[in-house]
Amino acid sequence: MSRIFNFSAGPSTLPESVLLKAKEELLDWRGTGMSVMEMSHRGKEFISIAEELKSDLIDLLSIPDNYKVLFLQGGATGQFAGIPQNILQGKDRACYVNTGAWSTKAIKEAKNHCEVIVSADSKSSNFTDIADYSDWDVDEDSAYLHYTDNETIHGVEFQDIPDFGDLPLVCDMSSNILSRAVDVSKFGIIYAGSQKNMGPAGVTVVIVRDDLVGHADNKIASVLDYAQQAKTDSMLNTPATYNWYLVGLVLKWVKESGGISAMEQHNKTKADRLYQAIEQSSLYSNPVKQAFRSRMNVPFVLADAELDKEFLSLAAKQGLSSLKGHRSVGGMRASIYNAMPEAGVDALIDFMLEFEKNHG
Amino acid sequence: MSRIFNFSAGPSTLPESVLLKAKEELLDWRGTGMSVMEMSHRGKEFISIAEELKSDLIDLLSIPDNYKVLFLQGGATGQFAGIPQNILQGKDRACYVNTGAWSTKAIKEAKNHCEVIVSADSKSSNFTDIADYSDWDVDEDSAYLHYTDNETIHGVEFQDIPDFGDLPLVCDMSSNILSRAVDVSKFGIIYAGSQKNMGPAGVTVVIVRDDLVGHADNKIASVLDYAQQAKTDSMLNTPATYNWYLVGLVLKWVKESGGISAMEQHNKTKADRLYQAIEQSSLYSNPVKQAFRSRMNVPFVLADAELDKEFLSLAAKQGLSSLKGHRSVGGMRASIYNAMPEAGVDALIDFMLEFEKNHG
Repeated sequence: MSRIFNFSAGPSTLPESVLLKAKEELLDWRGTGMSVMEMSHRGKEFISIAEELKSDLIDLLSIPDNYKVLFLQGGATGQFAGIPQNILQGKDRACYVNTGAWSTKAIKEAKNHCEVIVSADSKSSNFTDIADYSDWDVDEDSAYLHYTDNETIHGVEFQDIPDFGDLPLVCDMSSNILSRAVDVSKFGIIYAGSQKNMGPAGVTVVIVRDDLVGHADNKIASVLDYAQQAKTDSMLNTPATYNWYLVGLVLKWVKESGGISAMEQHNKTKADRLYQAIEQSSLYSNPVKQAFRSRMNVPFVLADAELDKEFLSLAAKQGLSSLKGHRSVGGMRASIYNAMPEAGVDALIDFMLEFEKNHG
Repeated sequence: MSRIFNFSAGPSTLPESVLLKAKEELLDWRGTGMSVMEMSHRGKEFISIAEELKSDLIDLLSIPDNYKVLFLQGGATGQFAGIPQNILQGKDRACYVNTGAWSTKAIKEAKNHCEVIVSADSKSSNFTDIADYSDWDVDEDSAYLHYTDNETIHGVEFQDIPDFGDLPLVCDMSSNILSRAVDVSKFGIIYAGSQKNMGPAGVTVVIVRDDLVGHADNKIASVLDYAQQAKTDSMLNTPATYNWYLVGLVLKWVKESGGISAMEQHNKTKADRLYQAIEQSSLYSNPVKQAFRSRMNVPFVLADAELDKEFLSLAAKQGLSSLKGHRSVGGMRASIYNAMPEAGVDALIDFMLEFEKNHG
C-alpha cells in the first residue's frame, strides 16, 4: 500500500524524508559499517549524533544557557513522579492545573509525593475550557505550578503562558513541543515524550533550569534524577540510542523546513481549515471553547453516533487512518502534528464533506 | 564500508538479517502504509507485534505461567531502584552479591531503600572470582538475594544458579539473557536491558513471579510498578514501540537459528576458541578464574600496555571494531554476544596471532 494519512495521536506519522533517511542508513551509518543501533553509546560516532541532537534542540527552541537539556526514558508519565521527586526541595505541596486526562494523571501521581493544590479545574465543563488565570488558586509558597500545555485527548491547548512570579512553572508539552514558538525562559521545567512531534516513542525530553537541578529526594530512581543525568549528558546508563538518532533526524527536518516559526504557520493553517470545516457543518461538532482549541489534536463528534463506524470504515478505505476518538471522549480525533502534511488535512476535509453530503 | 565485526559491549552488533528486515519494512509494515514507528500502540497492528514479542520470549525461555513478562523503559539501572521499591514488602534489608561493576551499582542504589547485606564480595580479587555459595552470608529472612549473572565489564559469569531455599532470587541477566539455557522457575525476578542479546537499547525485560507483583512502595514511579505495568500489558503509558518491534525481530532470529540451545552451543564454541587463543599466547592474558569466565565478554590485557594503541588501530583497519576495554579495567574486551558470528571471532583470533608474531 502507498503511504496513508495517519491521524494517530501518538506514536504518530513521521516525515517521509526522515523515514527514507533512516532506511538508507539502516545497515551502514556514513560508511562506518555499522547501524546506529549497534554503536556503543560511548563511541565517537554516537557521541557526534548525541551532540547534534542536543545542539539542534537548543537552536530550535532557543533554550537559554542556564537550562539543562536531558534525553531520558519512561515517557511523560515517568516525569509525573520524577518532577516532585526532583524539585519539591523539602516543600510539602505543589500546585496543579487540571485541564484534561493528562493533567489528571499527573495530579494523581504527584499525590504520592506531596499535597496537591488544584489551582484550576475544568472537569465540570468536561474539559472544554480553561479558567482565567486571575481565578486560579495558586499558592506562591508551594514548590511549583504544573500544567499541561496541550491535552492530547480533550483537544485543549493553552495559547499563552501563565505568569505567577517566581513560582517555577512546570509544563508538559508532550503533544505540542516544536509546534509553535515558546519562550523557554518563562519555565522551570518543560518536558515531553517524543512520540508526537519529535520522533518515535522512547525518548523523554526534559528541559530544566539549573537552579532546579540537584535537589532530588534520596529515594528517586537514579535514572530519573536530573543531577545525575545532567552530569553524564543523559548517559547515566545506556540511553535509547537509536531513538535519539531518529529524534535527531526529525529535528533536522524541522530546521530544514524553516524551523519553529514555519511549523507554527503550517500548523495554524491546517488547524484553521479543519476547525472551519467542522464549524460550517451540521454533522460535525467540536465541544472545546474556541479560544482553547488545540492545533494538534482536533476531536469532533458526529451528530449521530450511529454513523461513527461507517465514518471510520470509509475513511480507512481512503487511506485516512486512526481517526477514532479516545474511548473517554468518543467520536473522532484527528491528530495533525508537524509531520502531517496539508494534503492530509485537505483529504480529511474532502472526505468529511462527502460523508456529510451522503449522510446529512 | 562493508559490515564490520563490532565487538562493542552494548549497544552491540545485531544479526544482519534483522537489520535487512527492518530496512525492508521501514516505510510500510506489511502493506499498512505505515512504519511501525508511526503506529498507535493501541492499534491492532501494533498489538499483534506486542503479542508475538511476548509469546516468543515465553517460548524461548520456557517461562512458566506464574510469571509476568514486562517490557519497560529505563534499563537495568532503572530496576536498581525498581526492585527494592517493588519487592521489599516492608522488610528492611536485602542480600546482594558483589561480583563486579554492575553489582556494585545495584548495591549502591539499593542502599537508598534498605539495608544491604553483601553476601559475597570479590572486590579483593579485583572481581576475577566468585566465592563458593557455601561461604555466602545470606540472611534468609531478608527480602531477596540479588546477583549479576554476567558482569559485562569484568567478564565474570555464573555457571549455575545459587539455591537459598525460599528466598527470592533476583538476577540481572542484561548481558547474557538468551545466550544459554536457564531455569526461570528458580528465580523471583530476572531482568535485562535489551542492548546486548535482544536488540537495540531502550527495552528492559522484567520477568517476575506473580507473588512478587502488587507490593510496591507507594512512592514508586508508576512506570516502574510491576503491578500497574502487568495490568496494562506494559502499556501503562506509550511504550518504546519501535524498540519492541526490533526486539521481536531478534527473538524470531533466535528461534529460526535453533533457539536457546543452538545459541548456547554457538556461544560456547566462540568463547572456547577465543579463551584458548589467549591461554596459548604469551602476549595476551585474561585474569578471571577459569571456572567463571564469561562467554559473552572476554577481557584481555597485553603484556605491554604500550602496545594497546597500535593493537586497536590495526584491528580497526581490519574491520575489528570496539575492542577497547572498559576504562576501569583497561586493555581489551571482545564482546561476543549471540549475534557475533563465528567468523568474527576467528578473524579476531587471526589478527591477535598475527599481531603477536609481529610484536611478541
